Amino acid sequence: MPMPEKNPPENGYVHGYSARESERLADQAQTLTELLHHDTHYPAGSRVLEAGCGIGAQTVILAKHSPDALITCIDISKDSLERAQEKIRHEGITNVTFRQGDIFHLPFEPESFDHIFVCFVLEHLADPQRALGQLRPLLKKGGTITVIEGDHGSTFFHPENADARRAIDCLVELQQRGGGNALIGRELFPLLTGAGFSDVRVSPRMVYVDSSRPSFVEGFTKLTFTAMVEGVAEEVRKQELMTPGAWERGIAGLYRTAESDGVFCYTFFKAVARK
Amino acid sequence: MPMPEKNPPENGYVHGYSARESERLADQAQTLTELLHHDTHYPAGSRVLEAGCGIGAQTVILAKHSPDALITCIDISKDSLERAQEKIRHEGITNVTFRQGDIFHLPFEPESFDHIFVCFVLEHLADPQRALGQLRPLLKKGGTITVIEGDHGSTFFHPENADARRAIDCLVELQQRGGGNALIGRELFPLLTGAGFSDVRVSPRMVYVDSSRPSFVEGFTKLTFTAMVEGVAEEVRKQELMTPGAWERGIAGLYRTAESDGVFCYTFFKAVARK
Repeated sequence: MPMPEKNPPENGYVHGYSARESERLADQAQTLTELLHHDTHYPAGSRVLEAGCGIGAQTVILAKHSPDALITCIDISKDSLERAQEKIRHEGITNVTFRQGDIFHLPFEPESFDHIFVCFVLEHLADPQRALGQLRPLLKKGGTITVIEGDHGSTFFHPENADARRAIDCLVELQQRGGGNALIGRELFPLLTGAGFSDVRVSPRMVYVDSSRPSFVEGFTKLTFTAMVEGVAEEVRKQELMTPGAWERGIAGLYRTAESDGVFCYTFFKAVARK
Repeated sequence: MPMPEKNPPENGYVHGYSARESERLADQAQTLTELLHHDTHYPAGSRVLEAGCGIGAQTVILAKHSPDALITCIDISKDSLERAQEKIRHEGITNVTFRQGDIFHLPFEPESFDHIFVCFVLEHLADPQRALGQLRPLLKKGGTITVIEGDHGSTFFHPENADARRAIDCLVELQQRGGGNALIGRELFPLLTGAGFSDVRVSPRMVYVDSSRPSFVEGFTKLTFTAMVEGVAEEVRKQELMTPGAWERGIAGLYRTAESDGVFCYTFFKAVARK
């Protein structure tokens, strides 16, 4: 198997593969399902490639929204694939098949798919435009590619907290040191046009959270975003990106935005383009 | 007339009152009309107060969307009021009356209005929650208040440019020195709940701009946002907030985001609450 450009082993997957991380991904998927996925439905019989399915957090949603499409999922990590398969079996979903593979060297014939779906993958790649360029030949003419990514630079909140900002910047920096880009959401338009796709339509999906939306306070501000930041605590300490005191204040500042007068904003980007 | 807390004369209205500024406000109003105002319609016969109408950029839209409501507009500036009146006459609108007044000392009886509308006003006030608290008694029980504000801290773009960021920070700083808050959009929920309103519902309205949306590239990225930043150039120079070279690079960086591979994002916040 070729050396994966995703999740470079020398740095590791920036979010890690722990049990807590899996829970976080599940919580995130549940809270964000409607916001990110409500407008993705593939027709019966259409062949769909999910490139980089990870542990299948998005796969379950994708398959349920398009129960009669034939979905093929690939991922570089064997462990992730096994868990994705288990999840799919557990949910009783039967229209998904899995295959291990590198997004840069996929074992498929040209024009094998009607549609391609890529969610939270490009952020981890050193050359995301090349990845999109590699996927394009696999698509039939007129087929669509859907890409969803976050953008940590879209984060803002109330009350303001300089340490919380710095903690988020650490996440961005770690992802960059790992060869990825945590600010990739805003770049979907130039990446897709640059890779030769046409009719590129990007729609931002802001998660706006105040205390009138308690499920988002729990499910997003605390269990998704702040948990994700907390997940790199050890790496931040090891690489001495922040002092332990400032880090603690930053995390406390993020939790502070989840109180009754707090506000938290984060934007995902969803793009649909055509071959 | 009481000393206005809005537009403190020692600092001046941060955006100025020049002809170019008026054009900017008109362009902004046109581009953003649909995004910000499409869901505001007041019933026939209802009495609506627009607090802080300025030169009437929003008033025209408000009046057209609710042609049978009775709209009363107040503003602290006599000049602005005269121009708003002229604009309304020019448009042939007949359901608007104007009155000069300070938002903190309004010449109206309690419960005079069914609805209140406040757009791009709170950002200029030293104590916006007190202003909302002063407006509340003027509203009938069960009536609504609608508040729209921007938030410069929501700005992000591609390609990244540190000088452009710093130029935006200058705008935030100048507004703060003038007693205002250019980051107020995110605070609408706590401000309205803190002022005693209930059922506060905030919806973010992101202006997402890439080259597939040329009217927004022109109307928002260039003619609204970048023009607004350019409008404080002299003040930035006087107060030595940035070197002339860095400022020029910052402005160039903002225009750069309007090119074919550029992206620009800015978020307004609209809140509706009930007495």
